[in-house]
Amino acid sequence: MELSRHEGQLPRITARYRIETPCDPERAAEAMAGEQSSGTFLKLAGETEALRERHAARVESVTCLKVGTTPSLPGALPGETYTSADVVLSWPLENIGTSLPNLLATVFGNLTELRELSGIRLTDLVMPACFIEALPGPQFSIEGTRRLCGTEQGPLVGTIIKPSVGLTPEETATLVKQLIEGGIDFIKDDELIADPPYSPLSERVPAIMQVINEHAQRTGRKPMYAFNITGDTDEMRHRHDLVRDHGGTCVMASVNWIGLGALAALRRHSQLAIHGHRNGWGVFYRHPQLGISYRAYQALLRLAGADHLHVNGLASKFAEEDASVMDSARACLTPLLEGAERDDRAMPVFSSAQTVHQACPTFQQLQSTDLIYTCGGGIMAHPDGVAAGCRSIRAAWEAASIGVSLEDHAKQEPDLAVALRAFHSPFSG
Amino acid sequence: MELSRHEGQLPRITARYRIETPCDPERAAEAMAGEQSSGTFLKLAGETEALRERHAARVESVTCLKVGTTPSLPGALPGETYTSADVVLSWPLENIGTSLPNLLATVFGNLTELRELSGIRLTDLVMPACFIEALPGPQFSIEGTRRLCGTEQGPLVGTIIKPSVGLTPEETATLVKQLIEGGIDFIKDDELIADPPYSPLSERVPAIMQVINEHAQRTGRKPMYAFNITGDTDEMRHRHDLVRDHGGTCVMASVNWIGLGALAALRRHSQLAIHGHRNGWGVFYRHPQLGISYRAYQALLRLAGADHLHVNGLASKFAEEDASVMDSARACLTPLLEGAERDDRAMPVFSSAQTVHQACPTFQQLQSTDLIYTCGGGIMAHPDGVAAGCRSIRAAWEAASIGVSLEDHAKQEPDLAVALRAFHSPFSG
Repeated sequence: MELSRHEGQLPRITARYRIETPCDPERAAEAMAGEQSSGTFLKLAGETEALRERHAARVESVTCLKVGTTPSLPGALPGETYTSADVVLSWPLENIGTSLPNLLATVFGNLTELRELSGIRLTDLVMPACFIEALPGPQFSIEGTRRLCGTEQGPLVGTIIKPSVGLTPEETATLVKQLIEGGIDFIKDDELIADPPYSPLSERVPAIMQVINEHAQRTGRKPMYAFNITGDTDEMRHRHDLVRDHGGTCVMASVNWIGLGALAALRRHSQLAIHGHRNGWGVFYRHPQLGISYRAYQALLRLAGADHLHVNGLASKFAEEDASVMDSARACLTPLLEGAERDDRAMPVFSSAQTVHQACPTFQQLQSTDLIYTCGGGIMAHPDGVAAGCRSIRAAWEAASIGVSLEDHAKQEPDLAVALRAFHSPFSG
Repeated sequence: MELSRHEGQLPRITARYRIETPCDPERAAEAMAGEQSSGTFLKLAGETEALRERHAARVESVTCLKVGTTPSLPGALPGETYTSADVVLSWPLENIGTSLPNLLATVFGNLTELRELSGIRLTDLVMPACFIEALPGPQFSIEGTRRLCGTEQGPLVGTIIKPSVGLTPEETATLVKQLIEGGIDFIKDDELIADPPYSPLSERVPAIMQVINEHAQRTGRKPMYAFNITGDTDEMRHRHDLVRDHGGTCVMASVNWIGLGALAALRRHSQLAIHGHRNGWGVFYRHPQLGISYRAYQALLRLAGADHLHVNGLASKFAEEDASVMDSARACLTPLLEGAERDDRAMPVFSSAQTVHQACPTFQQLQSTDLIYTCGGGIMAHPDGVAAGCRSIRAAWEAASIGVSLEDHAKQEPDLAVALRAFHSPFSG
C-alpha cells in the first residue's frame, strides 16, 4: 500500500481494513468513512462542502473478496449475503495531529460497533513522514540493546523468571545469579509480577542488580534484566529511576494496560530500553474477522517508544498461527521510514514453549537474528543445567545461521545433542 | 458473586468468566489458573508447595452450561464437543498489589490466547475493600457533576459538537453559544477532535469558555463542556490546566487509547470532572464469546477516576444489544463498596441516535435519572430549533419520571408534540 502524496496535497493517514458486510461494500466503506469523520444521522448546518472537502475521510479503494451466507459477528444489519472486502480509507493528518491515542480514535474508534459490518479488522496503517518524525520512536532499538547487554551477534538468549509469582527478592536474585553464570543474555520478570507486597521493586531491583553488577565487574558483560514496572505513569517513572540508579538497563511494561498515552510518557522520561509486553493482545486477534492486526499495532507501540515487542513464537502453546507470528516479527523489523537516520525497528521477542527446535524455522522465515529468544523450560529444564541449556540454544541458532540441521550440528555440540533428546520437537507431529 | 473473606484469610480478587472449551471444563479452568499464576510447561524447582499454597490462582467454581459441536473461536485444541461453562477464579491480592494495569495482566492477561479455550470472556470482577479504597475513584461522581453544571434533577441533557471534525474554534464557540442559550446542560467534543492544528485546545478552550463564562455570569448557571484532552500523560495534564485556568469544569479522554495507567495519572492531577469515552470498546464485546463485559471493565475505569462513562443507548445505531446497554448503565450506578462514605458511582452517558423516544424505556429499565442523555440530531434537528429540542427532551424525561406516555404528556408540551412528529420512533418498527 503506497501512501499517495501528490504535490500540493496535505499529508494523509491511510488505513486498510478487512471487512465483512451485509450491505454493498461500497456503501459499507462510505459508512465507515462517515462514522469516523462526521457521523450523525442527519446532515447538519455546519457541515459545508468546503469543510467536507478538507476534513472528510476518503474511501481510497474497495476490493471485494468472497461472498458468504452467514455473518461472522452478530449485531449486524440483516442481509442475505455477507461480502468480505478490503477497504482502504484515508484521513488528512490535520484531523489528528501527531497523537497516537487520537490516531486510534480516528482509524479504529467506533468501527467495531457499526451495524453495517459483520466483520471488521484493521490490517495495516501507513503514516506520513511528518507523523513518524514527530514521535520519539524506540530509543535503543537493535544496536542499542545489543550494546547495553554486550551481545554483538546472534539472538539475545533470554529467559523469564519462573515461577511467575511468589519468589522473594532474595530468591529471585539467587535464580538470576544461576542464570547469568549460565551465560544468559536477557532475563525478564513475568508479566504477573510488577510491584507486589511480597517482592516490591524497592527490594527486588537492588537485590538483582547487585548480582548483575558484580557479574559485570568480573566479566565485563552486563546481562539485561527487564524489570516489570507496569503501573500508573508516575509510578512507572519513579520505578524507572530506581532501576537506572541501580545500574539496570531495561524496564518492561504491559503496554495494553498502561496504554499508549502512558507508554509515550514513559519513553519521554526514559534512559533505559523499554520492553513491551503485549499480554491481553489476544482479544485483538483471536477472532479472524475482528480486531487489529499486529502489523498495524506494533508500529504504534514502536512510535510510542517500545524497543522490544513480544510476538509469541512458532509452535507455541498459544492459539496464534505461525504465519501470524512471523508476520508480526517481520513487521517489527521493517523500518517505518525508509532511509531514515533514526533506527525505528523493535526487536521481536519470541516466547512460549520455545526450545532448540524453533531456531531453524524461525531463522529461515525471518532471515535475521536481531531478536530476543526466550525459553523457560527450554533452558532451565536442560538435563545438564542452565549453562548447558544456554549453550544448546546458541548452538541451535548457529546451526540455523549457517544452514545445517540441528542433528548434524549436534555431532560437534554435545549440549545440543542432549537437548534434542530431552525436548520433543513440536514439528515432528 | 460474593467475595469470600473468611477470618484469617488474605483478601482475594475474584473474577468470573464465560468460557467455551474442547476440554473437560475443570481441566480448562485449571489451565487458566495455571497460566495466570505459574505458567510454564514444566514443574520448576522453585515452585514449592508453600509457594503454590500462598500464590496460586484458585478455581472457585466451574458451572457447566450447554454443549455444542463447533468452536466459537478458531485456534483451540481439536475436540469433538465444545462445552460452555461459568468459571470463577480467585487470586490473593498479594500477587497484584493495588494496581489496575497489573490487575488486568493477572485476571485477563494471556487467557484469550489459550488453546484450551474456544471462547473466553471476563464477565465480572469482585475486588476486596482494601483494593477499592487504595484507588482514587471518581472525584465528582453524580452529585459533584450536578453541582458543577447546576442541574439538580433529571438527566443532564447533552449534545456533541457536530460536525465532529473541521470547525474552527470560533465556529465551535458560536455553536456552543446557540446550544447553551437553548438550555443545554452538557456539551462534549466529539472523540475525533482533540488538539488538531485547525482547532488547537489553546484556542478552542478560551473561545468556548468565554461564551460559557459570560452565560454563567448572566444566568448563574454554567453548562458543562467536556474538552477532549486525549493524549500522552503530560499533554493531558497540561491541557487539563488550560481548561481549569479558563474556568472549565470537565475534561474528556478516550480511555481505551490513553490506557488505565494514564487515566489514573490524570485523575491524581485533576481538579475537574473526567468524562470517559470508550471508543474502541466494540472489540471487547462484539463477539459474544470473546472479550470483557463492561460490567467488569467499567469498575476499573471508575477506580482509575472516571466520573462519566459512555454506555451507548437503547435502539442506537450500533451493534450492541439493548440488554447489554442497560446492564452497563446499571453497573455504573452500583456502588463498588456498599456503605462506603465515598460515592464511587459514575454517571452513565447515553448516546448514538437518541431522541425523545428512548427516554421512557431508559427510565423504566434504569429507575434513575442520574445520567447524561446526549442527542445530536435529536436536539439540533428539532423543527423549532435547539431550545425547543432541549425542552422536548426534558419533557420526555418528565413523562418518563411521572409514568405517563409521551403522547399524553405532549398534550401539554408543544415542543414534545413537534418532536414526536419529527422523529420516528425506533421502537415502532
